[in-house]
Amino acid sequence: MTRKIPVPAKRYALTLEYDGAAFAGFQLQKNAHTVQAALEEAIWKRFREKRRVAAASRTDAGVHARGQVAVFDLAYALPLSKLPAALNSALPPAVRVLQAKKVPSRWEPRRSARNKTYVYLLYDRHIASPLWQGRAWQVFHPLDDRSLRQAAKYLKGRHDFSAFRASGCAARHAVRTVQSLSINRQGHLLTLRFTADAFLYHMVRNLVGTLVLVGKGKMTPGQVKNILHAKNRKLAGPTAPACGLYLEKIRFGR
Amino acid sequence: MTRKIPVPAKRYALTLEYDGAAFAGFQLQKNAHTVQAALEEAIWKRFREKRRVAAASRTDAGVHARGQVAVFDLAYALPLSKLPAALNSALPPAVRVLQAKKVPSRWEPRRSARNKTYVYLLYDRHIASPLWQGRAWQVFHPLDDRSLRQAAKYLKGRHDFSAFRASGCAARHAVRTVQSLSINRQGHLLTLRFTADAFLYHMVRNLVGTLVLVGKGKMTPGQVKNILHAKNRKLAGPTAPACGLYLEKIRFGR
Repeated sequence: MTRKIPVPAKRYALTLEYDGAAFAGFQLQKNAHTVQAALEEAIWKRFREKRRVAAASRTDAGVHARGQVAVFDLAYALPLSKLPAALNSALPPAVRVLQAKKVPSRWEPRRSARNKTYVYLLYDRHIASPLWQGRAWQVFHPLDDRSLRQAAKYLKGRHDFSAFRASGCAARHAVRTVQSLSINRQGHLLTLRFTADAFLYHMVRNLVGTLVLVGKGKMTPGQVKNILHAKNRKLAGPTAPACGLYLEKIRFGR
Repeated sequence: MTRKIPVPAKRYALTLEYDGAAFAGFQLQKNAHTVQAALEEAIWKRFREKRRVAAASRTDAGVHARGQVAVFDLAYALPLSKLPAALNSALPPAVRVLQAKKVPSRWEPRRSARNKTYVYLLYDRHIASPLWQGRAWQVFHPLDDRSLRQAAKYLKGRHDFSAFRASGCAARHAVRTVQSLSINRQGHLLTLRFTADAFLYHMVRNLVGTLVLVGKGKMTPGQVKNILHAKNRKLAGPTAPACGLYLEKIRFGR
């Protein structure tokens, strides 16, 4: 029998990339394969420590990440530069630790985020794309870029986004600042890039569902402005599917 | 019992997109799931005709296509515009008919191609990318763009490509004209675009295998020039994996 001497744990922040299709979202769930569970198992396998992992953003099932940030405490001593490879060797290939940083022991990524960037990919062709399946939302109707850009203008800035907030959203209020919203096209692939100080639950997917109605000509850009002002979720479009959404980057500090 | 009146068949050319990961290549094989088998089954299901499908390029197992062209004969009469949807409704989601054209009854896509474009995707990061898995060749070492571009210069133009020809290649001679070879980077993703009058068997993958050695600094751009002139397959690099290769476009006619 060995007697363990308690060692003070250090807190680490990980930058993560994952394929959302392989997971039932970030957060731990019973009987489901989640990113958090995969990370906690990898920490256990490599370091024999039972640790909780907390993310900056609890991405839903199917949502991808290129720059998720998650923290955990670890007593095991190893050089910081070795931490990503140690965890990656115990993780499934659908998730990878890109970087590890030492952070203050009480640092919380959810509270410390200055802003976040999400990317949403749309593929507008009347025939489904085998190569973008599960990586973009396939829309079988051509989308009008000019209308999309006009509607996007109304969404930029500081607004009450109640019309684009899911019913399960626990935020105290719905005022958020969309710092930038860009739309780029390469052939049938449309890249929508949203940066905001914070996002409400399902906000990006609800905005995209509404923008797609505009792109199809089923709604005018001016109606988007009216919906925003009416603050009524029922007037906005449906929630866009998770497969097109990527948590791109989280910025911290002032 | 119905007696069928023989109807003269018409020849159709299909433009195809497919996810190579789902198939053991284009060409029919026993006990393997191939693109050709999927197409012939779809023709049988929809039109009850047993037909042979012939492609412009017999892509290997794992190779993707965004613009493969394949022909077949059909007696069943339907408007040309209905043909893609009719076949797509009977095909697996990993392959889609993008377009159908009526072509002369003896037209062969393999003989009629004026030139072809292949794209090869490389991802150069020391940590594997879950999101590019199976869609690009992951190289765990940074590649030097300047060396790659210098080596690419030597490969452009009319040359004897014997050094980059697979042993199983049945072509009469190895002289081909590389009309363009462009290299573009977006972050860790490198897009190599090859256009040539024709390609030898494994030519793009052998060229990429050699270019990666140059990008890693294990070979100089000048050595690529020497290997080309030496016409010796043994001096060139290994064959790059199929997952990074996309048959992009085939041009026909003068």
